[in-house]
Amino acid sequence: DAIRVLDHGFVRLDDAMADDLSVANAARVSFARRKEEMDDADRGLIGFLMRERHGTPFEHNAFRFHVRCPIFVAREWFRHRISSFNEFSMRYAKASDDFYVPAPEDVRTQVGKPGAYTFEPVDAELAERTRAELRAVYDAAYAAYERLVEAGVARELARAALPVGAYTEFFWTVNARALMNFISLRNAEAAQREIRLYATACEALFARHMPVTHAAFVANERRAP
Amino acid sequence: DAIRVLDHGFVRLDDAMADDLSVANAARVSFARRKEEMDDADRGLIGFLMRERHGTPFEHNAFRFHVRCPIFVAREWFRHRISSFNEFSMRYAKASDDFYVPAPEDVRTQVGKPGAYTFEPVDAELAERTRAELRAVYDAAYAAYERLVEAGVARELARAALPVGAYTEFFWTVNARALMNFISLRNAEAAQREIRLYATACEALFARHMPVTHAAFVANERRAP
Amino acid sequence: DAIRVLDHGFVRLDDAMADDLSVANAARVSFARRKEEMDDADRGLIGFLMRERHGTPFEHNAFRFHVRCPIFVAREWFRHRISSFNEFSMRYAKASDDFYVPAPEDVRTQVGKPGAYTFEPVDAELAERTRAELRAVYDAAYAAYERLVEAGVARELARAALPVGAYTEFFWTVNARALMNFISLRNAEAAQREIRLYATACEALFARHMPVTHAAFVANERRAP
Amino acid sequence: DAIRVLDHGFVRLDDAMADDLSVANAARVSFARRKEEMDDADRGLIGFLMRERHGTPFEHNAFRFHVRCPIFVAREWFRHRISSFNEFSMRYAKASDDFYVPAPEDVRTQVGKPGAYTFEPVDAELAERTRAELRAVYDAAYAAYERLVEAGVARELARAALPVGAYTEFFWTVNARALMNFISLRNAEAAQREIRLYATACEALFARHMPVTHAAFVANERRAP
Ligand SMILES: Cc1cc2nc3c(=O)[nH]c(=O)nc-3n(C[C@H](O)[C@H](O)[C@H](O)COP(=O)(O)OP(=O)(O)OC[C@H]3O[C@@H](n4cnc5c(N)ncnc54)[C@H](O)[C@@H]3O)c2cc1C
Ligand SMILES: Cc1cc2nc3c(=O)[nH]c(=O)nc-3n(C[C@H](O)[C@H](O)[C@H](O)COP(=O)(O)OP(=O)(O)OC[C@H]3O[C@@H](n4cnc5c(N)ncnc54)[C@H](O)[C@@H]3O)c2cc1C
Ligand SMILES: Cc1cc2nc3c(=O)[nH]c(=O)nc-3n(C[C@H](O)[C@H](O)[C@H](O)COP(=O)(O)OP(=O)(O)OC[C@H]3O[C@@H](n4cnc5c(N)ncnc54)[C@H](O)[C@@H]3O)c2cc1C
Ligand SMILES: Cc1cc2nc3c(=O)[nH]c(=O)nc-3n(C[C@H](O)[C@H](O)[C@H](O)COP(=O)(O)OP(=O)(O)OC[C@H]3O[C@@H](n4cnc5c(N)ncnc54)[C@H](O)[C@@H]3O)c2cc1C
Repeated sequence: DAIRVLDHGFVRLDDAMADDLSVANAARVSFARRKEEMDDADRGLIGFLMRERHGTPFEHNAFRFHVRCPIFVAREWFRHRISSFNEFSMRYAKASDDFYVPAPEDVRTQVGKPGAYTFEPVDAELAERTRAELRAVYDAAYAAYERLVEAGVARELARAALPVGAYTEFFWTVNARALMNFISLRNAEAAQREIRLYATACEALFARHMPVTHAAFVANERRAP
Repeated sequence: DAIRVLDHGFVRLDDAMADDLSVANAARVSFARRKEEMDDADRGLIGFLMRERHGTPFEHNAFRFHVRCPIFVAREWFRHRISSFNEFSMRYAKASDDFYVPAPEDVRTQVGKPGAYTFEPVDAELAERTRAELRAVYDAAYAAYERLVEAGVARELARAALPVGAYTEFFWTVNARALMNFISLRNAEAAQREIRLYATACEALFARHMPVTHAAFVANERRAP
Repeated sequence: DAIRVLDHGFVRLDDAMADDLSVANAARVSFARRKEEMDDADRGLIGFLMRERHGTPFEHNAFRFHVRCPIFVAREWFRHRISSFNEFSMRYAKASDDFYVPAPEDVRTQVGKPGAYTFEPVDAELAERTRAELRAVYDAAYAAYERLVEAGVARELARAALPVGAYTEFFWTVNARALMNFISLRNAEAAQREIRLYATACEALFARHMPVTHAAFVANERRAP
Repeated sequence: DAIRVLDHGFVRLDDAMADDLSVANAARVSFARRKEEMDDADRGLIGFLMRERHGTPFEHNAFRFHVRCPIFVAREWFRHRISSFNEFSMRYAKASDDFYVPAPEDVRTQVGKPGAYTFEPVDAELAERTRAELRAVYDAAYAAYERLVEAGVARELARAALPVGAYTEFFWTVNARALMNFISLRNAEAAQREIRLYATACEALFARHMPVTHAAFVANERRAP
C-alpha cells in the first residue's frame, strides 16, 4: 500500500478502519436502524449527507498513514489540527541525508498575484541550475551539520543548519471528514505542487476504502461536508 | 462484544483499529524505526510515554462504540469533544418508550458538599417510592408525548415533555488518548454512578484491545497522558 | 447586551475580543504586514478569505456568551465541539422550575420526509392543547422531583424525572470561524425553530462586533470558511 | 507588551480577553451564580478546579500572541493543535534574511539517552566554531535562495534551500487551558532550550493577566488541568 512520491518520499497506508457502510450506519442511528451491508439507499444517503453538509457520519473511521516528505511539505501538512501526528525527531536521532531535488519538469516560475498565482515551467537551463544550486546548499549544510554533531554539538542545535528541503517522516491518523478537508485544500489548484502530489496519493488510498464517499465528495465539488 | 448496562442500556464495540504495537511504532518513528511485533522494550516504552505525558503516540488508533443510555448520561458523555458522535434523533424518529428506573440498590442519597459528595444507600421503602415516582412521571410524560404526536404536533416539539431518564442511543468513535481521558474522569469516584457503569464497560473493552497501554494507564494513577 | 429568547431564555454577550481588523492582520502576517486600522483593501481581503475558504484568520478572536435555553436546545448546541462550555449542574444544584411552553403560534406540525421537513402552524385549539399537555407534564414532573429531593434522594438521580423542556444555562466561548459554522447550521431552514431563534440572537451580536466579516459570510451563502 | 527572545525574536501580546474572574464565573454557572469581582472564595475555587482537573472553566478566555522565532521552534509550537495560527508565508512573500545564531553560552552538547538528555556547555572555541559554521551555511543558503528567486524560480520552491534556523513569524490565539498545556510541556526541563525561552515569555504574560490561575498552576506542579 505504499505510493512513491517525489524523489525520496512515499505515502503508505499503515492501517485503516474505514468503509462506506459505517457512514450509512452512523447516519441511520438517527432512526435507530443499522445494516450489515450497503445497498442503493445507502449510496443515496451518503450523497445526501455530503450535499447537506451532515459531516459527523463521516467521522467514524480512521486512516493511519505513514508518510515521508520534505520538511516544507510537512509544515503545511501539520497545520491540519483535526488529526494525529508523530514525527521523526531531529532532537533524538541523526537527520537523514535525503533532500528534495525537484525533477527538471517540476522546476517552475510563479506568475500573478499572491492568492492567485499560476505556475509555469522554466527552461531546461534554469531547471538544471536550480537543481544544482539546491544540491550545493544541501551538501554544504549537511556537511556542516555532520561536523557539528561530530564535534559534540547537540543535534537539536546543529540541525538549525538543515534546509527545509530535508526529508522527514511521520505517522498521520485522520478520519474521513478531516481527510476530505485535507484533500479539498491540498489536492487543489491553489496548493503547492509538492504537497499536492502527496494529497493525490492520499486521495487514491481513501477512494479505495470508501469509494461511495469519495464519489460523493467529487460530485460535491470536492468540498468536505 | 456488547455489555449490558443499567436496565435497558448497553455498550457494544462496533469496530476497532487498536493495539499496543501502534503506540510503540508511533513513538519509534522519532527514530525512524518500526517493528512488526511487541517486545519487552515496547512495554517499557509505553510505560515511559505514559509517565512522561507523551500523549500523541496513543492517538493512532480508533474505537467505535455503539451505546444505549439515558439522556442524562448522554449529556455528560457528549461533553467529551475530542471524539465523534452520531445520535438517535427525536426530530426524525419517534422516541423510544424505554426509561431508566434505577435498581433499588442504586437509589441513593447525597451527603456532603458540592465537589465532595459521597452517596449512601436509602432504605428499601424510599428506594421503592423513588422507582414508583419515576415510573409515574415517565408514563404520564410518554402518554402526553404520544397524544401530541398522534394529534399531529411535530415530534421535535412534543419531545419537550420527555424526561432526561429516557433512553437514547449513539455511535461514538474515539482514540485511546481521549478514551483514557474519558475513563479517567468518568470511571472515578467523583462521577455519577450511572455514567460510571458505562465508563467501566468501555474500560473493559479498551483493556482487551490495548492491555499494555491499559496497565500503564492504571499504573499512572489512571491519568491520561 | 442581553437578547430575550423564548419564554424564559436569553443570549447575553458576556465579553468579546473581536473585530474585523484582527482578521485582516492575521491574514497579512503572511506578508509580515500589520495595520492599526481597517481600510477598503481589508474589506476586500476579508471577502477573498471567505470565498476562498481561508478560515484560520477568522479564529483570532473570542466571543463569550451567557445563554439560558431549554435542555433540548442545549443538547443540539453542545454538539459544536470547537468551542468551550460550562453549564448549570443538576448534580450540584437544584433544578430551576422554568420550563419551555411554546407560544401558540410556535406550535407546529411537521410535513414531509426526514431531512426535508417543512413545518406548518396548527389550529388554535391544538396549539392550546399542546401547551396544556406540556404544562401538565412539567408540573407533575417537577412536583415528583421536589418530593424526591425533599425525601433525600440525590439530586443527580431525582432529575431523571425532569423533561428536556426544562431550562438550563451555560457559558459558551467560541471564535468567529466556529461561530459562523454554528450560525450556518443553526440559523437555517433545516434547524429546529427554537435553536434557530437563539442562533439568530448570536448572529446579531456577532454582526455588531464584526460587521465586515458578517457581511462577507452572508455574501458567501452563509457558509463558514 | 513585547518581550525579546533569542537574537531576532519576540513574543508580543497583541490582545487578550483574560482574567481570573471568568474562571470563577464559569465554574459558578454550575450553581447559576455569578459575581462582579474576585474574592477569597474565588481564589480557593480556582485552586480546587486546578487540583481536581476541572479544566473547562479555564477555557473562557483568549490570548492573542504575535511571535517571531526560528522555524525549528515554530515547528514544535505548531504541534499544539488546540489553538489558532497564522504564519508568514514563504510562498507569498520573500523570506527574511534573519537566522538564528545561538549566543556562545547557548551552544551546548547533549549527554545521556533520548528522552533523558541533559545538556552541558561547550568550550569557547567550539561555541565560536558552531556560530561560524551556522553563519556560513545561512549565508550560502540565503545567497542561493536570492539567486534563484532573482532568476524567476517560484519562491515556494527556492525556499527549499533555507535552513530551519531561519526566522518566521505568526499570530497565535489560545485559551488558558491550552496555554497551560503548552507552558507545562515547553517551559520544562525536557523541552529544547530555544522554545523554552519563548514559553517562559508566554508564561510571564499569562501570569500578568491571570495571576491567581497562574499561581494555582504552579502549585499544581505546573500540570494543566
Ligand atoms: C492554498 C493555501 C494557502 C495557505 N496559506 C497560508 C498562509 O499564508 N499562512 C498560514 O498561516 N496558513 C496558510 N494556509 C494554511 C491554512 O491556514 C490552514 O492552516 C490549513 O489549510 C488547515 O486547514 P483547516 O484549519 O481547515 O484544518 P484543520 O486544522 O484540520 O481543521 C479542520 C476543520 O476544523 C475546524 N477547526 C479546527 N480547529 C479550529 C479552531 N481552533 N477554530 C475554529 N475552527 C477550527 C474548521 O472548521 C476546520 O475546517 C494555507 C492553506 C492553503 C490550502
Ligand atoms: C466530576 C465531574 C463534574 C463535572 N461538573 C460539571 C459542571 O458542573 N458543569 C459543566 O459544565 N461540566 C461539568 N463537567 C464536565 C467537564 O467540565 C468536561 O466538559 C468533561 O469532563 C469533558 O472533559 P474534557 O474537556 O477533558 O474532554 P474533551 O472535551 O474530550 O477534551 C479532551 C482534552 O482536550 C483538550 N481540549 C479540548 N478542547 C479544548 C478547548 N476548546 N480548549 C482547551 N482544551 C481543550 C483538553 O486538554 C481536554 O482535556 C464535570 C465533569 C466531571 C468528571
Ligand atoms: C439540521 C441538522 C440535523 C442534525 N441531525 C442530527 C442527527 O440526527 N443526529 C446527530 O447525531 N446529529 C445531528 N445533527 C448534529 C450534527 O451532526 C453536528 O453534530 C452539529 O451540527 C455540529 O456540527 P460540526 O461537527 O460542524 O461542529 P463542531 O463540532 O463545532 O466542529 C466544527 C468543524 O470542525 C471540524 N471537526 C471538529 N471535530 C472533528 C472531528 N472529530 N473529526 C472531523 N472534523 C471535526 C469539522 O470540520 C467541523 O465542521 C444535526 C445538525 C443539524 C444542523
Ligand atoms: C519533550 C518533548 C518531546 C517531544 N518529542 C516528539 C517527537 O519525538 N515526535 C513528535 O512527533 N512529537 C514530539 N513532541 C510533540 C508532542 O508529541 C505533542 O505534539 C506536543 O507536545 C503537543 O502536545 P498536545 O498534543 O498535548 O497539545 P495539543 O495538540 O494542543 O492538545 C491539547 C490537548 O488536547 C487533547 N487532544 C487534542 N487533539 C487530540 C486528538 N486528536 N486526540 C486525542 N487528544 C487530543 C489532548 O488531551 C491534549 O493534551 C514532543 C514534545 C515534547 C514536550
